[in-house]
Amino acid sequence: MASFNIMGGNLPCPLVKENTMIKVGIVGGTGYTGVELLRLLVAHPQATLRVITSRADAGTPVSQMFPSLRGYVDLPFTHPDEAHLEQCDLVFFATPNGIAMQQTRALLDAGVRVVDLSADFRLQDIAAWEKWYGMTHVCPDLVAGAVYGLPEINRAQIKSARLVANPGCYPTAVQLGFFPLLEAGVIEPDSLIADAKSGVSGAGRKAEIAVLFAESSDSFKAYGVSGHRHLPEIRQGLARVDGNPVGLTFVPHLTPMIRGIHATLYGRLTSETDLQALFEQRYAGEPFVDVMPAGSHPETRSVRGANCCRIAVHRPQDGDTVVVLSVIDNLVKGAAGQAVQNMNIMFGLPENTALNNVPLLP
Amino acid sequence: MASFNIMGGNLPCPLVKENTMIKVGIVGGTGYTGVELLRLLVAHPQATLRVITSRADAGTPVSQMFPSLRGYVDLPFTHPDEAHLEQCDLVFFATPNGIAMQQTRALLDAGVRVVDLSADFRLQDIAAWEKWYGMTHVCPDLVAGAVYGLPEINRAQIKSARLVANPGCYPTAVQLGFFPLLEAGVIEPDSLIADAKSGVSGAGRKAEIAVLFAESSDSFKAYGVSGHRHLPEIRQGLARVDGNPVGLTFVPHLTPMIRGIHATLYGRLTSETDLQALFEQRYAGEPFVDVMPAGSHPETRSVRGANCCRIAVHRPQDGDTVVVLSVIDNLVKGAAGQAVQNMNIMFGLPENTALNNVPLLP
Amino acid sequence: MASFNIMGGNLPCPLVKENTMIKVGIVGGTGYTGVELLRLLVAHPQATLRVITSRADAGTPVSQMFPSLRGYVDLPFTHPDEAHLEQCDLVFFATPNGIAMQQTRALLDAGVRVVDLSADFRLQDIAAWEKWYGMTHVCPDLVAGAVYGLPEINRAQIKSARLVANPGCYPTAVQLGFFPLLEAGVIEPDSLIADAKSGVSGAGRKAEIAVLFAESSDSFKAYGVSGHRHLPEIRQGLARVDGNPVGLTFVPHLTPMIRGIHATLYGRLTSETDLQALFEQRYAGEPFVDVMPAGSHPETRSVRGANCCRIAVHRPQDGDTVVVLSVIDNLVKGAAGQAVQNMNIMFGLPENTALNNVPLLP
Amino acid sequence: MASFNIMGGNLPCPLVKENTMIKVGIVGGTGYTGVELLRLLVAHPQATLRVITSRADAGTPVSQMFPSLRGYVDLPFTHPDEAHLEQCDLVFFATPNGIAMQQTRALLDAGVRVVDLSADFRLQDIAAWEKWYGMTHVCPDLVAGAVYGLPEINRAQIKSARLVANPGCYPTAVQLGFFPLLEAGVIEPDSLIADAKSGVSGAGRKAEIAVLFAESSDSFKAYGVSGHRHLPEIRQGLARVDGNPVGLTFVPHLTPMIRGIHATLYGRLTSETDLQALFEQRYAGEPFVDVMPAGSHPETRSVRGANCCRIAVHRPQDGDTVVVLSVIDNLVKGAAGQAVQNMNIMFGLPENTALNNVPLLP
Repeated sequence: MASFNIMGGNLPCPLVKENTMIKVGIVGGTGYTGVELLRLLVAHPQATLRVITSRADAGTPVSQMFPSLRGYVDLPFTHPDEAHLEQCDLVFFATPNGIAMQQTRALLDAGVRVVDLSADFRLQDIAAWEKWYGMTHVCPDLVAGAVYGLPEINRAQIKSARLVANPGCYPTAVQLGFFPLLEAGVIEPDSLIADAKSGVSGAGRKAEIAVLFAESSDSFKAYGVSGHRHLPEIRQGLARVDGNPVGLTFVPHLTPMIRGIHATLYGRLTSETDLQALFEQRYAGEPFVDVMPAGSHPETRSVRGANCCRIAVHRPQDGDTVVVLSVIDNLVKGAAGQAVQNMNIMFGLPENTALNNVPLLP
Repeated sequence: MASFNIMGGNLPCPLVKENTMIKVGIVGGTGYTGVELLRLLVAHPQATLRVITSRADAGTPVSQMFPSLRGYVDLPFTHPDEAHLEQCDLVFFATPNGIAMQQTRALLDAGVRVVDLSADFRLQDIAAWEKWYGMTHVCPDLVAGAVYGLPEINRAQIKSARLVANPGCYPTAVQLGFFPLLEAGVIEPDSLIADAKSGVSGAGRKAEIAVLFAESSDSFKAYGVSGHRHLPEIRQGLARVDGNPVGLTFVPHLTPMIRGIHATLYGRLTSETDLQALFEQRYAGEPFVDVMPAGSHPETRSVRGANCCRIAVHRPQDGDTVVVLSVIDNLVKGAAGQAVQNMNIMFGLPENTALNNVPLLP
Repeated sequence: MASFNIMGGNLPCPLVKENTMIKVGIVGGTGYTGVELLRLLVAHPQATLRVITSRADAGTPVSQMFPSLRGYVDLPFTHPDEAHLEQCDLVFFATPNGIAMQQTRALLDAGVRVVDLSADFRLQDIAAWEKWYGMTHVCPDLVAGAVYGLPEINRAQIKSARLVANPGCYPTAVQLGFFPLLEAGVIEPDSLIADAKSGVSGAGRKAEIAVLFAESSDSFKAYGVSGHRHLPEIRQGLARVDGNPVGLTFVPHLTPMIRGIHATLYGRLTSETDLQALFEQRYAGEPFVDVMPAGSHPETRSVRGANCCRIAVHRPQDGDTVVVLSVIDNLVKGAAGQAVQNMNIMFGLPENTALNNVPLLP
Repeated sequence: MASFNIMGGNLPCPLVKENTMIKVGIVGGTGYTGVELLRLLVAHPQATLRVITSRADAGTPVSQMFPSLRGYVDLPFTHPDEAHLEQCDLVFFATPNGIAMQQTRALLDAGVRVVDLSADFRLQDIAAWEKWYGMTHVCPDLVAGAVYGLPEINRAQIKSARLVANPGCYPTAVQLGFFPLLEAGVIEPDSLIADAKSGVSGAGRKAEIAVLFAESSDSFKAYGVSGHRHLPEIRQGLARVDGNPVGLTFVPHLTPMIRGIHATLYGRLTSETDLQALFEQRYAGEPFVDVMPAGSHPETRSVRGANCCRIAVHRPQDGDTVVVLSVIDNLVKGAAGQAVQNMNIMFGLPENTALNNVPLLP
């Protein structure tokens, strides 16, 4: 039987039994989201990896493609046709957009719960989804029942969800930074600006000229200024909170680092308020949102490898513009870590199970 | 006599005679601005470097500190007391703030023209300067007569200037991006946002923990959100153009690359206009501002090593927010290149003399 | 009482009681070795951090200097005079060279065990130590009793050691690569070559020009070719195995990455042998040495953040030169991880306790 | 007529007439070698670019693909079938291996001289070439007449060559480092070691996973240890100098920087000699080889963008191993710069024409 083989054999907690474990499958495990899921799940005391699929690399040991997993994962990639995903308790989709929507219905019908790390179930507006993603959606009805997996706004629904749409990386960093301000109604909702910077892993593990080392190192650029797929997702999330459509300008940039997103958010204040207290109170109970002391400038490396969003709020020169700095690791809180957090919530586990590792700094 | 020793000896244009050359001195040549000035001046057919000073490194050959200059510069650093700067035609100050203001009067009195790459003569408001730079200014009268050395707005005054205040790196990128919009009066001047990202060389060649490789590589952060010294300089320049004080939020960031500034600028449009045409017309005659085709995203590497500002203008989703992307090499158009451009203007030379090198890409 | 405050509070294994825990102190915690020790110890179920000292930063919360530790370490740095290190079970020295030798005798006398991550106790030849480190050694007698903390060669002695000299980063990577060949007597011991490449964190968290981002990024260089402090340490270790002095040329290089050492080792073969089998057998039982399949090229990122040395052995064109590729994370297996491994051995714990995390890739 | 359009129009030397210029064509201009050739040729006062071909990108303006060339090159890429290369005086091949050998005969027959930057004409041993490059060679007779374009060993033959095989990047750095030692007969020729490190641009501008930013940044690895195509080329060059076959172990590595090669060379000394003097004398007249002072450690950035090889020679601990450090910019002295140097020699121009730019540092 396929299972984890923890190096040295001493599982962190011997009380957990195999037969009480969550049987997990991963569809599409050759990208950065997939390997990151594996890194986190390896340390999860109550999940056992049953299968990880790849059409192109079926038969190749996972640890051959990702030597960092030698000694931790001894599974090969399995062809989708032989994966028997219906025997899992939970399936993660770490696939390109358009795959999960093809396979989710059968899994749900078989009683499997699904966390989709792609964008297939994120937008409730199907027409908008089809426009931005350039495909016809094959299961709009499932979208309607999907829960947007941002625990800081949707924890209760996630608990009972059968299908979770795991948020995008930019949307996670941007929404967590704007929520307190919009919920409190202290900024104009029609002129929001999100100037966001992403590390190159955000582009995925795809052979493309633009993200070669020799193209993207030692340089900086914006991209997609005319429109980026994460724009409607962010707008949807902010509108839900605000109660009305919001006006948002979203400019993503590529920065020469591997991991990390830094969102710099701008809003126009409409009333006096203690911004520091507002943020601290909003996230007081949240295990994975860290409101830093007043005057702080969070660095992306301070969350490298960790399921954490660090936020600082500023009001320069006491003017009417509020500036929020929000950082995450795009592969963790922006993808695989949030997916595990959602799994923990869905299965009634402590929310930080397997998510307590300290960021890697330097 | 100390002079350049061009490797191989073939000066590009043999018609230029030594006795018609501009005798140049550099004060404070051990920083990045200094070595960059040397790189550019080495190729200048009508300038000859007479002296380069350093108090701490007097006697050390310049090319020992900067091996890239081996074969090009055979001068040692000279102690300031023995520099005889008064024999130069032009002196560049590539010093920390507060040095140039101590020495400029004597040079001007001796008939030497001065280009100060530090901030000593940039702010006309002496009180503001003293607040932001934490020093008492010793020659406010000289500030009043100094010309702000941004050729794209001040070319005529630079021509006859005896003292030029070379602009800061952020101010160059930000002002060039906002000028067309403010001059045309098509944006609200009270809610400008400049989200700027700088390579690490912008921090200078100083031994500080925060800019160590192991601290600033593979990470991204904002800094100085509460206030940065370039803020009043930018505001002064924009107000001059607009005719009124402007409201500006300026957020600088540190990005893991050596050279380059990317300014992402946001303004709220107040009237319909052809933005692309506006920018193209404004900079039609400028040799060092390149307005890129509509839809472009300039990369900082596209100006690496070159005295060029590339600009693209966007209006996302045809909304009321204009987004300007402006990139420069902070050490060239943001410092040493602009200083040479100013020198060329001051001495009646073709403005692009020694500034025609192609950017280094990749 | 000072102690860890694990975010969320769910310790991985509730059976471990506070009163059975190892009380740990760290001297000099403001460098990279210090913060890395903290990252690892935070997750250690049987160690509790009692104190971490810093003369310069006494009173500053550790997590203020290293925000990655927010929520995990709530101690401030303590002044050495108030540290009461004698109440610890184990003290780690993460100090510059020359500090540990001043303080170790008192700690040993108080019954505290010591792991020194600096070089004070690594060289048995005191004269050699004094020459390479430029100091007079104050306790040669303690050196004589110190155990060199490379478990793969010294595990039994470490078990009962009161004072462990934790190996240097280069020496760890180089020795582990040469051991199998020298033990088997299949290479000439008088013409070994170690061409080693280190990430910049190996230079420590010190404000020095040479390791600024703008100096060391996008460049590569050798250094210390005439002699490096790790040379005598490597020679001592190899000679111990070989039984005779060895001839070694050691050339370290600086490569633009944060963490990682890649040692490329060359030896002249003196007899036919199955090199792959030799290495696999030598390290068959070792939890932290991974002999990769024949033909492999280990990447430093494959051990990023992990206490692992990955090795591949090659014999190009079946000639008489063997090439060994050996990679470690200089801060983990090359410093803090190895120190925790030594602690685990000294206290009879499973050797991989708190050292089972998967490398961070990408 | 297609031609350069130098920004601003002031050619550095107005005496050069169009009709005396070398008409240059480039085949395959979309890679890094191509864009680097353009950067250098733009500044060449006696060469005019007539055509640059690309099958895939025919019609696209060159400056659209490489915005760094905006204002310098206004040609589009031309389809090979419409290129009329036979009207050129010189054609550079900046193509993948196997293309130049298809087209060279026709060009030579038309009286066009050829500099091939690919490997098609580098190896005199056709069988070896076919083995390493996996193709049948279509014109072995032309190989026999081709001149290996390393001016420091072959200047006289290059002068009259009709077909120049431009050396590989590793072979340039390695051969220049070994030549003085082999020529003087002071090292054992049968146990040479070349441990070489290359920046990522050496892999070319090809969409491949292994050279993505997120794969190759912040990591270091060897590759091709069992055999690399540059090995036979280096051996051929060294054997020619030594008079006998040499024994060489060549290990290339990938280092996270864009440009640069650092070769660390090891040889066993067989006689006493003044190594520093040996190297200085060997390269005394060479414009592009810089022997650094004793004790130096050349950095790759010290030659960034320049046609220069800097070398330092060491004899650690006065032992019997000599260590040579040799650095080049792989795209300049390792490719395009050397090609222009060869062109200058072939056409009787000063050898440093258009190659006098100062390296870009920092």
